[in-house]
Amino acid sequence: MASIDKIKSIAERVAAMREEGNQVVVVVSAMGDTTDDLIDLASATGEQKWHREMDMLLATGEQQSAALLAMTLNSQGTPAVSLTGWQAGIRSDDTHSKARIISIANDRILQELEQENVVVIAGFQGLSPQGDITTLGRGGSDTTAVALAASLLADRCIIFTDVDGVFTADPRLVPAAHKMATISYEEMLELASLGAVVMQPRAVECAMQYHVDVEVRNSFKTDPGTIITEGSSMEKQRIVSGVAHDTNVARIAIFDVPDRPGVASLLFNKLADEGINVDMVIQSAMRENRNDIAFTIEKPDLAKALPVVEDVVRELGASGLSYDADVAKVSVVGAGMQSHPGVAAKMFEALAEEHINIHMISTSEIKVSCLIDEDLIAKAVRALHAKYELDNGNWGCC
Amino acid sequence: MASIDKIKSIAERVAAMREEGNQVVVVVSAMGDTTDDLIDLASATGEQKWHREMDMLLATGEQQSAALLAMTLNSQGTPAVSLTGWQAGIRSDDTHSKARIISIANDRILQELEQENVVVIAGFQGLSPQGDITTLGRGGSDTTAVALAASLLADRCIIFTDVDGVFTADPRLVPAAHKMATISYEEMLELASLGAVVMQPRAVECAMQYHVDVEVRNSFKTDPGTIITEGSSMEKQRIVSGVAHDTNVARIAIFDVPDRPGVASLLFNKLADEGINVDMVIQSAMRENRNDIAFTIEKPDLAKALPVVEDVVRELGASGLSYDADVAKVSVVGAGMQSHPGVAAKMFEALAEEHINIHMISTSEIKVSCLIDEDLIAKAVRALHAKYELDNGNWGCC
Repeated sequence: MASIDKIKSIAERVAAMREEGNQVVVVVSAMGDTTDDLIDLASATGEQKWHREMDMLLATGEQQSAALLAMTLNSQGTPAVSLTGWQAGIRSDDTHSKARIISIANDRILQELEQENVVVIAGFQGLSPQGDITTLGRGGSDTTAVALAASLLADRCIIFTDVDGVFTADPRLVPAAHKMATISYEEMLELASLGAVVMQPRAVECAMQYHVDVEVRNSFKTDPGTIITEGSSMEKQRIVSGVAHDTNVARIAIFDVPDRPGVASLLFNKLADEGINVDMVIQSAMRENRNDIAFTIEKPDLAKALPVVEDVVRELGASGLSYDADVAKVSVVGAGMQSHPGVAAKMFEALAEEHINIHMISTSEIKVSCLIDEDLIAKAVRALHAKYELDNGNWGCC
Repeated sequence: MASIDKIKSIAERVAAMREEGNQVVVVVSAMGDTTDDLIDLASATGEQKWHREMDMLLATGEQQSAALLAMTLNSQGTPAVSLTGWQAGIRSDDTHSKARIISIANDRILQELEQENVVVIAGFQGLSPQGDITTLGRGGSDTTAVALAASLLADRCIIFTDVDGVFTADPRLVPAAHKMATISYEEMLELASLGAVVMQPRAVECAMQYHVDVEVRNSFKTDPGTIITEGSSMEKQRIVSGVAHDTNVARIAIFDVPDRPGVASLLFNKLADEGINVDMVIQSAMRENRNDIAFTIEKPDLAKALPVVEDVVRELGASGLSYDADVAKVSVVGAGMQSHPGVAAKMFEALAEEHINIHMISTSEIKVSCLIDEDLIAKAVRALHAKYELDNGNWGCC
């Protein structure tokens, strides 16, 4: 929620849904710069490792939004109450700053709904078994909404965001990209992990696990968005439903690593200890008893990762390392891929036709990803969108 | 707490107290403009009567301060945890925006103290029987501190404020005013009610009820302040211990009110319904069967009070009303007054010597108050301070 104006426009939407006879529960995030401002204040106090206190601080942002939205609704004649995470019964583990929801004791919410109130809930937060306030980390508000929808057996969970829905590719790169009417959880999960930041993967996972229909729509428009739901028969016919890309990628390679058990585990455990997520990994046995290992991480983690990798190179007696921050990942995703061989070959063909070199390849049951040079990413996305005949939109998108 | 710098200086004081071997519980208020900024946001949403939501909003200010102070303490090497009002076990009634503390379930605080943590508690807030966040209204943070000190059987409650302590008169008006080393609850209560805004009356009442020693001291200085405690023998010797004044006063008079039962009740109930506090009241029977009634209210309430009073004038068939916003109240306070007649006479004499006209008089066991013209208030306070021989400070103040 950006500002009071945004809150007022959300209030109007909520009131309209209620007018239609719905019981409405709203999950809110913090307003505009609130979270950043609070982080700045915390930075000024000293060290930044007091996660319990940080959660105590940051949780106030959503609490403020919730109170302001409830006030606005009441002023506009729609009875509403705000609830913090703990009041809404959201119980989490005690991993401060990235807690996971364990359970929801929803009696207070049900009681308020029974009294015909709109219930406005501060997202992104829970209560630990110790009785402390936790925050759920990235995507926490989306996850709160989905988990509540599951707990309340809601008909639908609508995520209001700043995009129109889920597209076959980023419309800023591919003018021919289409908004999909529906997408399966599995496809959305792959897309979300591949850089289409419409919805956080953990929220999609939660929706999939509890069979919650989620609609992603633009908070500034009244058009329908994209419904994320169980794989439909229509969808099975799509071999490739979308092209995703991610430029927030850097690649590190280590040369001449001894070929013995435990090498990969040593490297990736040390990176994990620093909180660095590793995405694509390839290991190739080029020469006798020596391997090359290459992997990708998020671009901002590069500076933190290099000293770790240098230590490992020394420890293992590898011959050296290289890294490249000017790379990007392009992926094709589709639930139909599982039963249609040749999807990957078609992707390599499309990239070759555009003279785009592939640095790394990674595949899953429903996606193929290629690492390429960052400056070729728009060209690659457009070529793939055309190659899989997504441009003409003849496969049931809206 | 004004800013991060203020928080850091408070953290140093707290750390020093703990170094001396004390278990420390700190109650914090919101930072600088936080509360005003939140009120502005709320004003922008629409009507201003959603007290439950307002409490939800405003309570975040103290929560932020508490988290920031706990972070600062931890960063400086003093283990600390912050607690919200509800986490600290502060249970209140459900009068949102001016709730009263009912009880304190202090097990969490004791548990944190046992683990050698400094406990930083968000003041000004509690939890209602319905499980909603309440705020305690004016003086709520002081009251939280005193109530916690009582509940925890603390040796002392120190209120850090922006004044050096309790003075025999406002030092800005009376250069000869002295800081008192001690003052009794009763005297402090009168002074607090009479415009010496060192501490809110309700916090003093709470201290008196639970026999908590409260020290009021300047948060920017290391000098001792004033200890508010049981009436001491030393104190009994003081006939008048201080002169207080209040310029936030307006006077309203109604003429020729019929002399029959229920008249005063009608008037003052209607004012109470509008949330207007009435302070001094006099009723005089000038003529047969007709009375004049005069009373004082807080200056900002005048605009709200006048239409109410005009209605009452019509309803009662009174002959008219007058009002005056340019008045002020001057009071002398002293526990010794009870056993020393002539204190009031001496006051009237002092004012007469300065040619100051008295509009209204009100007395209690330990104070005499006079309403005078506002522009004469400094002169009156100085004259009384001299008359009761407070200038020479020979009665045991520091």
